[in-house]
Amino acid sequence: MSSAILLIAHGSRRAAANEDLLRLSKMVRERIPVEDVPIIEIAYLELAAPSIPEGLQTCVARGATSIRMLPYFLSAGAHVTRDLREFQTQFEEIHSQIPCIICPPIGLHPTIVDVLLTRMEQNLDD
Amino acid sequence: MSSAILLIAHGSRRAAANEDLLRLSKMVRERIPVEDVPIIEIAYLELAAPSIPEGLQTCVARGATSIRMLPYFLSAGAHVTRDLREFQTQFEEIHSQIPCIICPPIGLHPTIVDVLLTRMEQNLDD
Repeated sequence: MSSAILLIAHGSRRAAANEDLLRLSKMVRERIPVEDVPIIEIAYLELAAPSIPEGLQTCVARGATSIRMLPYFLSAGAHVTRDLREFQTQFEEIHSQIPCIICPPIGLHPTIVDVLLTRMEQNLDD
Repeated sequence: MSSAILLIAHGSRRAAANEDLLRLSKMVRERIPVEDVPIIEIAYLELAAPSIPEGLQTCVARGATSIRMLPYFLSAGAHVTRDLREFQTQFEEIHSQIPCIICPPIGLHPTIVDVLLTRMEQNLDD
């Protein structure tokens, strides 16, 4: 069994904003043993490459037997949720033997408040 | 001294998305003693009310002697940062005696990875 995580961000025209997802994927990789999740890939909903179908395809090419789409969004509005479900459906039509689920966005997790409490002691200009 | 936090989200046309900020402000309120920060208000960058100038004004009306603008954004791109700085400058021109700082956005805080590790065990459809 080779489970895969596809980390998904919105995507931006600014390269610096897109690089956050690469950095995040390294941070996630450091926290999840390769034995548990051998494959971690990234994809952008729009405006940047790789696209979600490309990211899913890379997971398959690397031997994924199951894929979790993990949205790096504070919330997933109707538009984002619909788009993710469309990519999921397209994928399942071609790869019906590979389960592909969508995980919830970050949302109002209590831990987010911990981060905000840290940020409130900082100044954007420092 | 009455310090204030102005929690800022992007704002959406969907009421449900905007309600997240209200829920977040309650979660923050539960974590910060009233003695430390008596005033916690919310504002939206666009598309919803109250606006940032309105939120800042409410802080002043409630007696704020210092204000921290706390962005509830995963990242603050050039557009968001510029807008926040414009509101800050406008505010300081009128209320030069009330320090108003902009805190950093949530960003790639290590704790965000903790939240993602929780979310990856969940299914959006459960």
